Amino acid sequence: MRDNTVPVDAPGRLRGLGVDEFRLRGGFWGGLQAVNATATLQHCLEWMERLGWIANFDRVARGDTDGERPGWQFSDSEIYKLMEALAWEYGRTGSAWADETFVALTERVAAAQDGDGYLNTCYGHGGQAERYSDLSSGHELYCTGHLLQAAVARLRTAGEDKLVEVARRAADEVCRTFGADGQDGICGHPEIEVGLAELGRALGEPRYTEQARLFIERRGRGTLKPVTLLDASYFQDDLPIREADAWRGHAVRALYLAAGAVDVAVDTDDTDLLNAVERQWARSVERRTYLTGGMGSRHQDEGFGEDWELPPDRAYCETCAGIASNMVSWRLYLATGEPKYADLMERTFYNVIAASPAEDGKAFFYANPLHQRSAAADVRPDEVNPRAEGGVRAPWFDVSCCPTNLARTLASWQAYAASVEGDQVSLLQYANGDMRIALENGAELALRISTEYPRTGAIRIEVLETPSDPIELRLRIPDWAEGASLADETTAYAVEPGWSVVPGPLKAGKVIELNLPVDPRFTWPDERIDAVRGCVAVERGPLVLCAESTDLAEPQAIETLRIDTTKLPLAEGDGAIVRAASVPVDPAKQAALPYHSTPPSRDRSAETSGVRLIPYHRWAQRGSAAMRVFLPTI
Amino acid sequence: MRDNTVPVDAPGRLRGLGVDEFRLRGGFWGGLQAVNATATLQHCLEWMERLGWIANFDRVARGDTDGERPGWQFSDSEIYKLMEALAWEYGRTGSAWADETFVALTERVAAAQDGDGYLNTCYGHGGQAERYSDLSSGHELYCTGHLLQAAVARLRTAGEDKLVEVARRAADEVCRTFGADGQDGICGHPEIEVGLAELGRALGEPRYTEQARLFIERRGRGTLKPVTLLDASYFQDDLPIREADAWRGHAVRALYLAAGAVDVAVDTDDTDLLNAVERQWARSVERRTYLTGGMGSRHQDEGFGEDWELPPDRAYCETCAGIASNMVSWRLYLATGEPKYADLMERTFYNVIAASPAEDGKAFFYANPLHQRSAAADVRPDEVNPRAEGGVRAPWFDVSCCPTNLARTLASWQAYAASVEGDQVSLLQYANGDMRIALENGAELALRISTEYPRTGAIRIEVLETPSDPIELRLRIPDWAEGASLADETTAYAVEPGWSVVPGPLKAGKVIELNLPVDPRFTWPDERIDAVRGCVAVERGPLVLCAESTDLAEPQAIETLRIDTTKLPLAEGDGAIVRAASVPVDPAKQAALPYHSTPPSRDRSAETSGVRLIPYHRWAQRGSAAMRVFLPTI
Repeated sequence: MRDNTVPVDAPGRLRGLGVDEFRLRGGFWGGLQAVNATATLQHCLEWMERLGWIANFDRVARGDTDGERPGWQFSDSEIYKLMEALAWEYGRTGSAWADETFVALTERVAAAQDGDGYLNTCYGHGGQAERYSDLSSGHELYCTGHLLQAAVARLRTAGEDKLVEVARRAADEVCRTFGADGQDGICGHPEIEVGLAELGRALGEPRYTEQARLFIERRGRGTLKPVTLLDASYFQDDLPIREADAWRGHAVRALYLAAGAVDVAVDTDDTDLLNAVERQWARSVERRTYLTGGMGSRHQDEGFGEDWELPPDRAYCETCAGIASNMVSWRLYLATGEPKYADLMERTFYNVIAASPAEDGKAFFYANPLHQRSAAADVRPDEVNPRAEGGVRAPWFDVSCCPTNLARTLASWQAYAASVEGDQVSLLQYANGDMRIALENGAELALRISTEYPRTGAIRIEVLETPSDPIELRLRIPDWAEGASLADETTAYAVEPGWSVVPGPLKAGKVIELNLPVDPRFTWPDERIDAVRGCVAVERGPLVLCAESTDLAEPQAIETLRIDTTKLPLAEGDGAIVRAASVPVDPAKQAALPYHSTPPSRDRSAETSGVRLIPYHRWAQRGSAAMRVFLPTI
Repeated sequence: MRDNTVPVDAPGRLRGLGVDEFRLRGGFWGGLQAVNATATLQHCLEWMERLGWIANFDRVARGDTDGERPGWQFSDSEIYKLMEALAWEYGRTGSAWADETFVALTERVAAAQDGDGYLNTCYGHGGQAERYSDLSSGHELYCTGHLLQAAVARLRTAGEDKLVEVARRAADEVCRTFGADGQDGICGHPEIEVGLAELGRALGEPRYTEQARLFIERRGRGTLKPVTLLDASYFQDDLPIREADAWRGHAVRALYLAAGAVDVAVDTDDTDLLNAVERQWARSVERRTYLTGGMGSRHQDEGFGEDWELPPDRAYCETCAGIASNMVSWRLYLATGEPKYADLMERTFYNVIAASPAEDGKAFFYANPLHQRSAAADVRPDEVNPRAEGGVRAPWFDVSCCPTNLARTLASWQAYAASVEGDQVSLLQYANGDMRIALENGAELALRISTEYPRTGAIRIEVLETPSDPIELRLRIPDWAEGASLADETTAYAVEPGWSVVPGPLKAGKVIELNLPVDPRFTWPDERIDAVRGCVAVERGPLVLCAESTDLAEPQAIETLRIDTTKLPLAEGDGAIVRAASVPVDPAKQAALPYHSTPPSRDRSAETSGVRLIPYHRWAQRGSAAMRVFLPTI
């Protein structure tokens, strides 16, 4: 049973696409998805076998748990995220390898499940700590949440199977242990909430949704034992979610929690809860989000900073936080239909998520800073790497959440490209490929989309097949796309950011040309972002650009570039050329310190030359380099 | 036996003052020292009794170590730092309370010493981990280093006593265990190096100096077991000290190590080692030091950042790092006689060290950021507080290194105010008080210094007594003091930053008037400090000033202040008034994010009004507040 009419993960009034409703044909995302399929999935599998993380399940199954256990306490979750990726990959392509690998992993996971449904390789067996004895840091419910998401992906692409049964039993154990009459606990790392809500929706099982609701309502009352030197905001246990104005603490935790809250709000018709997350999104996007869409300003706790605390150099912008941000925005989009959520998703897809994988799909950015002062040291390919090392993609990490998270996201990217509500289809993300969308009463809409986006802004949409009943096709015009235009065979007209409805009856053979302006443009930061005052960035369509030392005669010249913003940036390839002067940076010094009694010189007649900028997502692909997104102006 | 001719902690060609050679009479430092004496010492004692950190010694003495031990593994060091403070206090004033308290603590500490000299309350006894089983994090040698420094203070103010004997036995145990034929280990937290070097010098025992040298040479070869998620630079085990160009990793560790290295370099005549530390000082001060003198740009590892990574908001600038920086600068000054080291010490004394204590001496800043966006939550007076909480002084911390470090520094402040070399006396720091300096052959120089510095720049130096042989008196003219002047009864003339020799024969009755220009002045950051681009700071004499929301009609107005640098700041009290406009910060927005397609408005004709700035060291004394040192310009 393939149930592609069920949205990928979270419906409101709208649904997203099933993973086989949109087949990418090369292009930006098709290319990334192919590398994910042919390299990354196998890469993750090999590393987790090599490190013994998968064998942890075998050890539990044979009762051999007294010895030392490899991996962090949350390593089970990596296997589940890989399984989710395999499920989407099978759903997308029918890959036999993906299916067989999924089934083989299912056997090993299932064998480790206790009789009462509890499933974790780090707790509750001989020689291990007791079940749920460390809710703050144990991550047991977090792991279970990822198991449930993997099962939902399987349910939606292959139907009921053994993993779904394993997940059902695990969810039942959670409900028995932590239900209204059970232990009044929550998990230090949110994820169980979204897992339970998704499974509840997919199986039509309100008990699971109710358990997710319980976990969400319990949170924010300071019941978690503090982690050394961090306060309760680290795991969002400082304030009930309904009372918070912005996201704070560990970014991935905050965002997984918000994703679960939207699911629960939608499924229980809880407008107050939905509004709380919408409010937090608005405030956090306005004041705590990078130009790339990245979230997380602090390394210390992998967390959000205060309002306007957005340092480009120490930006954490964890790849997983970008993925989690899109989980939240996607759910809010489906719940409200507002295009601003899809706008942020596009930004995050191109400038956080696409930045992470190396071209070969076998190394990844964990942190995604917007400024690297000096080229990072190379990683050693056969070793696990520290997670926060910026500026170099590493094959695997000590805490290796990002590679598998990326794998599941890329394998299902197309699901976020459009939404359907009754007789209205909305295109959200533009990519080369063939859409065949199931509508009501068995009807289908088939579109062929041809584009080199984002390299160019020309997007050709050919209608191949329409239902007999009238249908409306809407196009999202991105928030940055001032000057976009739309044309069909007879008319061409300007369109504004927001929704643009394709005019006239939608018939097979109709061709629509959308043109998004992807000329490079200057973007200035808000006055209150202290860390990039006096700087400008350059964007091109959805792409944030950057200067990389690789393109400069002297690597350290990246410190002295000053952009002339009176000259518009010119397109070059998918990057740009800007005019820049080089300022003197060694003024006569009175003191040993870098503070002077005279202001910096501002010679606006300084000679300028052209400097190349490249898409941020490609930085450090030509080797380790210094880089900056925000460039000081003359 | 009082041996005040032995310098306080580190001689080169020069020596500093014994703590009773300069008696402060009120004023800036006299006031802080009095509060330290009457409040802080007792405060530290009470907290450490209350928390059981002192009783840890009693538990070891009676063999009762199987139960849970209060405090971190390094809590012994806090008792030793308090003892060092008590030793200086007794030397300074002859306080019977300080002496009795020192003696009582000595008894309890001595009772915990093992037969072979090993002394630590956390390791090596029943129910505890083995001695030296965790050199990376155990801090045993770190604690011993502080014991040795306390003993040196006692030796210099009261002569040989029981604590000196305890220290000697502890140092012997360290030499036996870690000597050339012993275990090839180093401590994760440097401090044993400086402790051994000081004790070796004070006792004339080259074995201790040699052991310090061994620890220093062993470092930087990656032998310490890594701490989770941090690399070897965290504890300076990445590079041999002779090869490093700048300080990196945990700031206090880097600086304590450097202090020990200077001591060893001087006592073993090792120019290469001395030059290495001088080079690191120069590079780190030029590129990794805040305007306040604060060091440490990162919360994550309490560490230095990269060159030019100096965020004002996330500045860590730990109080202890300021103290440690002055330990290094003091040693380099004594080793080289270069006034730049005393310049940095003055900056750090006034803007890091003086900022930490509350007016009542019973609460302290741990971190010293240069920008606080919103008022911090108040602390609860009866609880230990997280260390990194900025913006509010707390009575005690979970990791409470700063209060006792401050206590020992304030109790010996006057020792750094002048140096002596043969017949040359150099005044380094200016404060109200009476100096009586021992010269060669029993001669003495007595000076009375009268000043309200730094509130005013007038410093009156009256010669009360001189030796029969000629003597030279030099005054340090601070690096910021362009326009200073010097006058005696007959002449007045301009003096330049650097040394200024008092002219004419120095006779009793001679009066010298030094005038340092303390009008408020603008200071601009180097072009490469990205985090404060487009900003200016205001200084006044040695004081860094700041804007505090307490002085603004609307607290959030601190975000929108834009300084008009065409109008010089005016003096007001010990602060200043600057002219500032308020910029609009809510431009028409196209997107949900804080990035715009138009540049910020720059209306230079905007109406300005006067805004008050206060000395940074006093911020948050009138209650929790937002604050900034670097202010954006119009």
